[in-house]
Amino acid sequence: MSKSKPTGVTRREFLKRIAAAGGYAATYQAMAGLGLLTTQSGCGTETLALTEGNGTQVIILGAGVAGMSAAYEMSKRGYSCKIIEARNRAGGRNETARHGTTLQEIDSVQTCNFDNDPGLYANLGPARLPHHHRNVLGYCKEFNIALEIFSNDNRAAFFHDSKAFGGQPVQTKRLLADSRGAIAELFAKTIKKNALDEDMNAEDQEKLLAYLKNFGDLNAQHQYTGSSRAGFKDTVHATMTPGVIQAPLDFKQILTSEFWDYKMHFAEGTDQAATMFQPVGGMDKIVDGFYARVSGLVELETEVLEIRNTMSGVEVDCKNLNTGDTKTLEAKFCICTIPITVLRNIPNNFDTAINVAMTGVTYEKSGKAAFQSTRFWEEQGVYGGISWTDQDITQMWYPASGFHQAQGIIVGAYIWDEAQCVRFANQTPTERIESCKLQGEAIHAGYSRMVKNGITRSWHKMKYQQGAWRTDLPEIPEILQGAIGQVYLAGEHMSMLPGWQEGSIISAQKVMEEISHRVEL
Amino acid sequence: MSKSKPTGVTRREFLKRIAAAGGYAATYQAMAGLGLLTTQSGCGTETLALTEGNGTQVIILGAGVAGMSAAYEMSKRGYSCKIIEARNRAGGRNETARHGTTLQEIDSVQTCNFDNDPGLYANLGPARLPHHHRNVLGYCKEFNIALEIFSNDNRAAFFHDSKAFGGQPVQTKRLLADSRGAIAELFAKTIKKNALDEDMNAEDQEKLLAYLKNFGDLNAQHQYTGSSRAGFKDTVHATMTPGVIQAPLDFKQILTSEFWDYKMHFAEGTDQAATMFQPVGGMDKIVDGFYARVSGLVELETEVLEIRNTMSGVEVDCKNLNTGDTKTLEAKFCICTIPITVLRNIPNNFDTAINVAMTGVTYEKSGKAAFQSTRFWEEQGVYGGISWTDQDITQMWYPASGFHQAQGIIVGAYIWDEAQCVRFANQTPTERIESCKLQGEAIHAGYSRMVKNGITRSWHKMKYQQGAWRTDLPEIPEILQGAIGQVYLAGEHMSMLPGWQEGSIISAQKVMEEISHRVEL
Repeated sequence: MSKSKPTGVTRREFLKRIAAAGGYAATYQAMAGLGLLTTQSGCGTETLALTEGNGTQVIILGAGVAGMSAAYEMSKRGYSCKIIEARNRAGGRNETARHGTTLQEIDSVQTCNFDNDPGLYANLGPARLPHHHRNVLGYCKEFNIALEIFSNDNRAAFFHDSKAFGGQPVQTKRLLADSRGAIAELFAKTIKKNALDEDMNAEDQEKLLAYLKNFGDLNAQHQYTGSSRAGFKDTVHATMTPGVIQAPLDFKQILTSEFWDYKMHFAEGTDQAATMFQPVGGMDKIVDGFYARVSGLVELETEVLEIRNTMSGVEVDCKNLNTGDTKTLEAKFCICTIPITVLRNIPNNFDTAINVAMTGVTYEKSGKAAFQSTRFWEEQGVYGGISWTDQDITQMWYPASGFHQAQGIIVGAYIWDEAQCVRFANQTPTERIESCKLQGEAIHAGYSRMVKNGITRSWHKMKYQQGAWRTDLPEIPEILQGAIGQVYLAGEHMSMLPGWQEGSIISAQKVMEEISHRVEL
Repeated sequence: MSKSKPTGVTRREFLKRIAAAGGYAATYQAMAGLGLLTTQSGCGTETLALTEGNGTQVIILGAGVAGMSAAYEMSKRGYSCKIIEARNRAGGRNETARHGTTLQEIDSVQTCNFDNDPGLYANLGPARLPHHHRNVLGYCKEFNIALEIFSNDNRAAFFHDSKAFGGQPVQTKRLLADSRGAIAELFAKTIKKNALDEDMNAEDQEKLLAYLKNFGDLNAQHQYTGSSRAGFKDTVHATMTPGVIQAPLDFKQILTSEFWDYKMHFAEGTDQAATMFQPVGGMDKIVDGFYARVSGLVELETEVLEIRNTMSGVEVDCKNLNTGDTKTLEAKFCICTIPITVLRNIPNNFDTAINVAMTGVTYEKSGKAAFQSTRFWEEQGVYGGISWTDQDITQMWYPASGFHQAQGIIVGAYIWDEAQCVRFANQTPTERIESCKLQGEAIHAGYSRMVKNGITRSWHKMKYQQGAWRTDLPEIPEILQGAIGQVYLAGEHMSMLPGWQEGSIISAQKVMEEISHRVEL
């Protein structure tokens, strides 16, 4: 009864499930025991098996997580690696803004004016690590990168839909408790109407009703009249005064809203469920970890001009962006982690089919904004987690560390839907900031006056990325997955986990092993 | 449609809901808008309004969180406070064991042999702070106590029921995803059988079906065939190989188990829902915070022998446990935070009705065990959170900090049900440890050989506590809630939040205000 499903369908997994044969009913009686316990592998890269390189030259294009992890592992095994990076920093889309960071897009430059404090940072790219991304966690362990829990699912945060509940934000705990209460009550009603008599015997129906009573926090008559799970009205706690249960939200409005359209279930997703992590002090601690080990191999500010397979290896023409000098580098193999959006505009002598295939690869144009502020949200009991809105800003993230400190960084927008991303990308940084402030008012009254030192990032507008991550679909063409002469493509886009550092690392592992295999022959 | 409900029904709230009038259906059409947003108050005690004490003497019995918070606040306002504490440390049930801690019960003594490392500790009493317990969080803020997120709800942890699934532990993510899938599929089936036609129009039913598809991760035919939310089989992530969805768990076995009997919904509870906290380095950082401010007022190792109301105040006979010397302390008022289990055995001149009322107060006998170990659970992808079992140990807690360090402290038992607590309490520490090791094997094979340096605590066996917290029901008798002459009772047991430090603090606030009011007159 198991079925295959791409592991990469993360953010949109709730929308894009492919219809499958069979059904719950078919398995209902069938399974005798369990015996299928998932054995989550321990973190680490100890399974990577590479032949000794004996000085085999490998040129790596891009000093992001994929490129640096490849250089780190191959260097350890006797390969002679060099990394070419166009930007003036390593890390690629793993980038953290803090005091003094320059944010340059193709048509704008921003400077981050957050106070100079190690706790005041914004992860512009990846910002969380799932507990089962064993390779990236393995490097965190190996590099002694301190981790702290990131809360995707703070029940005190808010859902906001301008078309529901008069446009007022609704606390997550209330939305979830009242939705489940309504579902449980309605389902119980159908059971009492004997609608399951063909499916279940009376004893099991009784158990199911008991289950629903627990699940929905129903009363003895299987009615939902509100729940303390939804939070109390007004007073949070008094000494001896009972908390007042709120009236349930109108389920019809919940259905009319789009809360339930994956957002409400987001933190149930395989890559979003607790426990999630963030590195203490910023996601780029992972960059620092790699860079400390491979910096001697990296040429920064060096742009790739052309890539050519030759009779005996690969040649890469590149230009020093400071001096303007060009040179041609030669190597036996090339691991190219340049995003397809950029790579397809770099001249090459690949087969036409390769270049055609690259034209069909699509990227999310994701953007973010972040602000410094006093931690007004904590005064409202909101510590960490995410609020959702149907406005362009999509999400607001509250910091998952530094609780109760005077200042904090709030992510004022995290956008990935196409139309919203395009609107965001096409604004100037100042326009983006003003727009984010205005939209934030719908979740937190007074927001626009409290936040300051805003910064923004549109990955679509980054010269050397031109996108945030490969879209889940279409899948990466098979023709791009194998050897392109002496060239191998790696990066998040070459994995089943687009948009995740784990995807970058496992894609690098795959091409390292393929190169290793050719060295072995 | 709102109804009153005690705020204190926490751990058992799913079991003890009182049937209420009305129902979901009654509100379904009725609510026009929201307008009822809970405004969580900011943390802090700034609302505490006390008349200047002008040296009014207050004797406080017990240097736990209730007693120390009272002494701290009243001293600031000119009251002359003294705290009498029987034990050789302040903090009461807020107690953290670490290297060298002596754990003395009425018939045993243990020494904590955890390695001498600030990250290796076990909170023997309270171990988590809800985001809306604004007073205890307020003190954390005021005292600069660093907080970190505590994960109640780690989807990689396990549920174990010896009567279900062949006694094999089931990963939380799998149990939840498959349960919701089954519910959604079955409910959808009843909807398709028109069982809701009297309750909802066709359009709303379509929306509800769409909701259920999202909620349960159903296919296009509204069947549940497994979900990536349940975690993948075998391989966690490969580069281009789809993850294999596991076959759904047998819902009949889920219903037969007792997973759903509040355990599955535990982290939805008003006092258990994210975001939860723990102080960095141990819950007793809160004790340290108070004690640093009131230590000059505390007499440790001083046992209360008798409490008497007099014509003009209160007299407390007490004995220095080191010297054996006795003395009588006089004050205008007394705040007595001694647990009722202990207090009712201390001679007094209270009305008979008071003493009778005290005999009816019941306490949980909760116990805990903790072990030092290599972090083998993290090798399995389990970072923080709680596993549940139907064995006596009830819960296992994985540390929510110090990830990837060599050693960690695992809570090997957290017990609160009466029969289990009694069995635990009646064992010697050595027997408890052996029993916990054996039971842990059911969740983690090899557990008993991996854990070491076990310690245990039965609060029932603590001379000066004789219990862990007041049971939710029966409620505290009204006669104990007011002035008993010049004596006022405070502590977690005198609040709607038994077992929570927030309850201790708000109960202290209540009696401080009552005393203040009498001073004012």
